[in-house]
Amino acid sequence: MAPEATATAAARVMARLAVLGGISEEAGRLTRPVLSEAMRRANAVVVDWMRAAGMAVRQDNIGNLLGRYPAARPAARTLLLGSHLDTVRDAGRFDGPLGVLIGLAAVEVLAGQGTHLPFAVEVLAFADEEGLRYHSAYLGSKVVAGRFDPSDLDLVDADGITLAAAIRAAGGDPGALPGDRRAGDDLLGYCEVHIEQGPVLEARDLPVGVVSAIAGQSRVEVTFAGQAGHAGTVPMAGRQDALCAAAAFILAVEARARQQAGLVATVGQVAVQPGASNVIPGQVVLSLDVRHAEDARRRAACRLLAAQAARIGRARGVTPTWRVLQESPAVACAPALSGVLADAVAARGYPPLYLPSGAGHDAVVMAGITPVAVLFVRCRGGLSHQPAESASPDDVAVALAVLLAFLQLLAGQETAAP
Amino acid sequence: MAPEATATAAARVMARLAVLGGISEEAGRLTRPVLSEAMRRANAVVVDWMRAAGMAVRQDNIGNLLGRYPAARPAARTLLLGSHLDTVRDAGRFDGPLGVLIGLAAVEVLAGQGTHLPFAVEVLAFADEEGLRYHSAYLGSKVVAGRFDPSDLDLVDADGITLAAAIRAAGGDPGALPGDRRAGDDLLGYCEVHIEQGPVLEARDLPVGVVSAIAGQSRVEVTFAGQAGHAGTVPMAGRQDALCAAAAFILAVEARARQQAGLVATVGQVAVQPGASNVIPGQVVLSLDVRHAEDARRRAACRLLAAQAARIGRARGVTPTWRVLQESPAVACAPALSGVLADAVAARGYPPLYLPSGAGHDAVVMAGITPVAVLFVRCRGGLSHQPAESASPDDVAVALAVLLAFLQLLAGQETAAP
Repeated sequence: MAPEATATAAARVMARLAVLGGISEEAGRLTRPVLSEAMRRANAVVVDWMRAAGMAVRQDNIGNLLGRYPAARPAARTLLLGSHLDTVRDAGRFDGPLGVLIGLAAVEVLAGQGTHLPFAVEVLAFADEEGLRYHSAYLGSKVVAGRFDPSDLDLVDADGITLAAAIRAAGGDPGALPGDRRAGDDLLGYCEVHIEQGPVLEARDLPVGVVSAIAGQSRVEVTFAGQAGHAGTVPMAGRQDALCAAAAFILAVEARARQQAGLVATVGQVAVQPGASNVIPGQVVLSLDVRHAEDARRRAACRLLAAQAARIGRARGVTPTWRVLQESPAVACAPALSGVLADAVAARGYPPLYLPSGAGHDAVVMAGITPVAVLFVRCRGGLSHQPAESASPDDVAVALAVLLAFLQLLAGQETAAP
Repeated sequence: MAPEATATAAARVMARLAVLGGISEEAGRLTRPVLSEAMRRANAVVVDWMRAAGMAVRQDNIGNLLGRYPAARPAARTLLLGSHLDTVRDAGRFDGPLGVLIGLAAVEVLAGQGTHLPFAVEVLAFADEEGLRYHSAYLGSKVVAGRFDPSDLDLVDADGITLAAAIRAAGGDPGALPGDRRAGDDLLGYCEVHIEQGPVLEARDLPVGVVSAIAGQSRVEVTFAGQAGHAGTVPMAGRQDALCAAAAFILAVEARARQQAGLVATVGQVAVQPGASNVIPGQVVLSLDVRHAEDARRRAACRLLAAQAARIGRARGVTPTWRVLQESPAVACAPALSGVLADAVAARGYPPLYLPSGAGHDAVVMAGITPVAVLFVRCRGGLSHQPAESASPDDVAVALAVLLAFLQLLAGQETAAP
């Protein structure tokens, strides 16, 4: 495909991102939760685009769109492309929709050429990845991957509406969700294009990168219990200040993560009790988020930090409590499929940089039924989950060109396959 | 006075503390705000006790009680004793009422002996020292000292009731507050007995101590503005984590205060934005409370800490903002009057320990019109502003004996005076 044609297609992707960016539950900012009226409208627009590209489209019971572009021959396998259409509150335009629209654009290029590949291409637009409405992420891909937990139907949103009721209100049937599972035996793989949401590609001056693995995550609640007291009358030597202990721990977390390549560790929440300016803090509860692409290294970092919390507590007469809220293992991208993606990057003239993803993506869930590969697109300043989130038209054009090259390489493999 | 008699009087003080401790706006815990129904009932009880001791009692427009025990001769001067009857939320029994009731007990001893001193003794029970209801401390003593700010009449409580309306509802006249000013020219001084609210006397194994000065206080709001970001995708090296900067500052505050004798510095409040477990903190606002009995040392500590905040910010790409909310100078207790109090401590057989007060007291305001002296009473564990606040009957008896010795020494001086 000629560069100008790719640029034109990328410009259309940018225009469509703007269209979807205007479909929101809130005036003046982009907020599109699962099964909302805004999601209904967004889906309707995407269905029109998919159909115009010659795809057969259906919507499943949780609101995922599945647009299918047929293979050149019957009984062929299927390659899945996609990402999600839901957003966080006050979101940017790119996180999610970019992957759907680049997949769609690739199909449009094939359709425009009258080309069919030796495999079907199915573009998936997941209904819930962010978990904004029900605080349960990946609802969309879990339905497709057959990992949906029926007890989640009882989840309630801020208005008291259960997930089951929301599904019915949108025209779906909660009881039919198991039937929406996508059998994995005919699948070639799942490839997701997504903005990086981090600064690595920008720092390396690269438009795209290949994700090696999606980091595992430990979420821990750490409590330091000391002794509250009067800020004016208790001398420094007699204090058991829970916040000073927490501060020492926060710096220990940072120092540890700085020492270990690929490790990120963050304290994002701090609650101080009693929380008065003239009272020595008696208790601090803080959140700890630790991620690494290798589970063993993540677990080792957590063990070390728990030991440091204990040491800090002992030295200060403050009692630490370590409560693990969540342990999500890392998900490795499929080496073979990712290798093809890296070859596609190289074929477009860029060094194929492998990098881990610190954020979760639908690919995490899809890896349960098929090999996955993820292409990261550089985003400005590494910003995401905010209106300033941005990827350039040039980088979107590169991503589309890489995806098309990926399809060609896969087509060659599939044709050569026995 | 015989030790047994003092013990009996101290036991009565303890019993009365229990009575007042049961007069509250909240069931099950002691909360007695200015101009409340609980305060009306507490005042009524104390008025009865004062009258029974032969005192002429009046209540001023803000709800202060002033009980006067006459001098042996006309045209004599007046010594003020007292403290406050209002409390914090979920308070202990001792903070405030102890000083009122020990003053009353001293008068009862005099009355029981039929003794009148060469000066009148006036017991003041201030209506607001804690500032619970209107967040403006010392409203009671400010009225007596003529330092009440009429604009405070527009303050509103949590129910939207102005101070002026609350005064009227309690039967007072807001317009008459200036007339409640106590002229200072006939005053001998003001002596306040108060629990220490700190651990120094307990550590020194002393029942009482003489306050040298009430520490000055700086209250500062410190903000660290960094850059929020995704906790999973932004590598450690690229972060401008506002909370890590704040943690470094919190430890710097602690280290500085530990190095400087008599200095206490506390971070009691921390607000993290956006405050999500998976988002790098973009902004932290914290409270800083710095106290020292010498203003120059307090100011120097604040300057040094501001410089450290700037240094920490520079090193981390985080911008600190330093906003001084309040600067209260230290108040020295009157050397002569405090010397008499120290002599009284020695006369009762205890080494007279001088110690600064890190907490504010009504004496701070009263120092504006008359010499002040403050007697601290040991309290268990240094605890205050909580139900566990406690002073022993033995220590209360010592405090009463010291106060009586103080009155005798002053009487000798006043008789000898020209």
